[in-house]
Amino acid sequence: MPELRKDPVVNRWVIISTERAKRPVRHSVTTEASDIDQCPFCAGNENMTPPEVLVFRDQSNPSSLLNWTVRVVPNKYPALVPDGSGVEIADENYQVRDGIGAHEVIIESPRHVVDVALLSETQIAAVLQAYRHRMVDLRADKRLRYILVYKNQGGEAGATLEHIHSQLIGLPIIPKQILEEINGSKDYYEANKRCVFCDIVRKETDVRERVVIENARFIVICPFAPRFPYETWILPKTHSPFFERNAQQDDRDLAAILRGTLIRLNRSLGSPAFNYFIHSNPLAQSENHYYHWHMEILPKLIQVGGFEWGSGSHINTVTPEQSARLLREALP
Amino acid sequence: MPELRKDPVVNRWVIISTERAKRPVRHSVTTEASDIDQCPFCAGNENMTPPEVLVFRDQSNPSSLLNWTVRVVPNKYPALVPDGSGVEIADENYQVRDGIGAHEVIIESPRHVVDVALLSETQIAAVLQAYRHRMVDLRADKRLRYILVYKNQGGEAGATLEHIHSQLIGLPIIPKQILEEINGSKDYYEANKRCVFCDIVRKETDVRERVVIENARFIVICPFAPRFPYETWILPKTHSPFFERNAQQDDRDLAAILRGTLIRLNRSLGSPAFNYFIHSNPLAQSENHYYHWHMEILPKLIQVGGFEWGSGSHINTVTPEQSARLLREALP
Repeated sequence: MPELRKDPVVNRWVIISTERAKRPVRHSVTTEASDIDQCPFCAGNENMTPPEVLVFRDQSNPSSLLNWTVRVVPNKYPALVPDGSGVEIADENYQVRDGIGAHEVIIESPRHVVDVALLSETQIAAVLQAYRHRMVDLRADKRLRYILVYKNQGGEAGATLEHIHSQLIGLPIIPKQILEEINGSKDYYEANKRCVFCDIVRKETDVRERVVIENARFIVICPFAPRFPYETWILPKTHSPFFERNAQQDDRDLAAILRGTLIRLNRSLGSPAFNYFIHSNPLAQSENHYYHWHMEILPKLIQVGGFEWGSGSHINTVTPEQSARLLREALP
Repeated sequence: MPELRKDPVVNRWVIISTERAKRPVRHSVTTEASDIDQCPFCAGNENMTPPEVLVFRDQSNPSSLLNWTVRVVPNKYPALVPDGSGVEIADENYQVRDGIGAHEVIIESPRHVVDVALLSETQIAAVLQAYRHRMVDLRADKRLRYILVYKNQGGEAGATLEHIHSQLIGLPIIPKQILEEINGSKDYYEANKRCVFCDIVRKETDVRERVVIENARFIVICPFAPRFPYETWILPKTHSPFFERNAQQDDRDLAAILRGTLIRLNRSLGSPAFNYFIHSNPLAQSENHYYHWHMEILPKLIQVGGFEWGSGSHINTVTPEQSARLLREALP
């Protein structure tokens, strides 16, 4: 059984999950049939994963069992597991609780594609829709307080399988980074009576120098105080706390701008490994005026070192103005 | 001029330093004389670094200019620089200030050694003494609010030069991670009237299962809620907020236990890349009952991914009880 343990100084929960140490590591890009035969995410190998919790099928041929477009399956090596009391045990020093939760894999293509930028907009929109469907479904589990959707593409970004996929983890706690954003944006709202993210969208639209691209619903920026070179955020232009309340048209517009951003990162930086994740409002809270969902893309270009781990701060050698200009100019 | 920029949502300061992008990257371990000839940290190449701010010489031959044991020089590619107004500029959205501060390199041996565990205890004690001397000296600069000493050993841990060295950065702000520890330990003190780190020392000494080694002054543990496999902390056994107030005997005892810990990590894990850093009390604060300096060692064994960056939490596949047992049993 995994555990959640709380650091007694900074109150950071970490997941201790020894089961996950058993997962296979298969990084290298390969086109050998023998390897693809063993890829648990390829069409035809569905029996290599646990049964799916969600599947989208090609509407032109919906009766074919293999003819899926997106599959969501429980992670075979889960960081958190569905069963358990969720009881918290504390002695005079330490707090620990059962590592209950959900850990799922979103398989983004039936084919052995290794770069999400190679998918069509329609396919990426289906992936985003799958994220939303799973988040809405998991909301029914009242033990969960937060669902984080994230992607690791490339071994340097933490991926252990190359076939494109993303993951979601449903947690019985609100994680540290989200609490900080919620508290920060609540404080900002109380001081200014405006959403800090709405203000960022307004400011960046005005000054332009950190804008990469935009469309009707979304803007892509390199944020003012980025942790990493070419760190890039995608924000909805209008106030919206919950990613999972997006409509199908939002999926399409987000897919278009996400694909455009990833193609620019590939062209500018030689297809770097990267992480992205979606920050949405915590589950139990209702619609509010202060939090605004968004997506953060972190290309993996540098090694994080002792300064970063020791300070919680970052040294970034590229200004966001430089990053945004390079990404803007990457495509005509 | 580097800049400090503040994220408007979570109030995290980051350093934007484009000068640092120019530094050379020389990872690979080599014994070719031609490469060592070009190593800026080797004895004989002192003119390849800025002039030293501190040097220790071999007492048996103190008059030889080349006969140094530890040299501290300003970083040639500094993240922060000494000159500048330090003025903070804010518009209605963003805060930025001059990136003033100190960024120094502690060269830990005149020889081209690439692993600190190969140094003698005496030499490591001299390095620790150099840290303290520089911290005490930099305290005189009243613009500085925190000094972080850290080491990156190995390219995967962020080192760009292999010759063993550590770094210190003096900052005009108290970094996020330190603020969290200060606030957390202050809250704990207010609730319990005891230092949280003293309580950790007491608890771990009592239960034993997470203790790696100890000596008269220090205890080495794998902490209860570690972020990383084989994360290891060294704590003074008695309450002590400031690392820089250590005495020479503390340096010797810390050097012995640090070296013993690093040798155990090497034996157990095949000489992994690692980071260490020292967390000491912020400069302006006086002696207090709630904060306790310590050293954290983070072996670089896994890739940090989207879950970690997106949540600020961590998934750790090794329990600290397993880690401590392996490290305990690494040496007879």
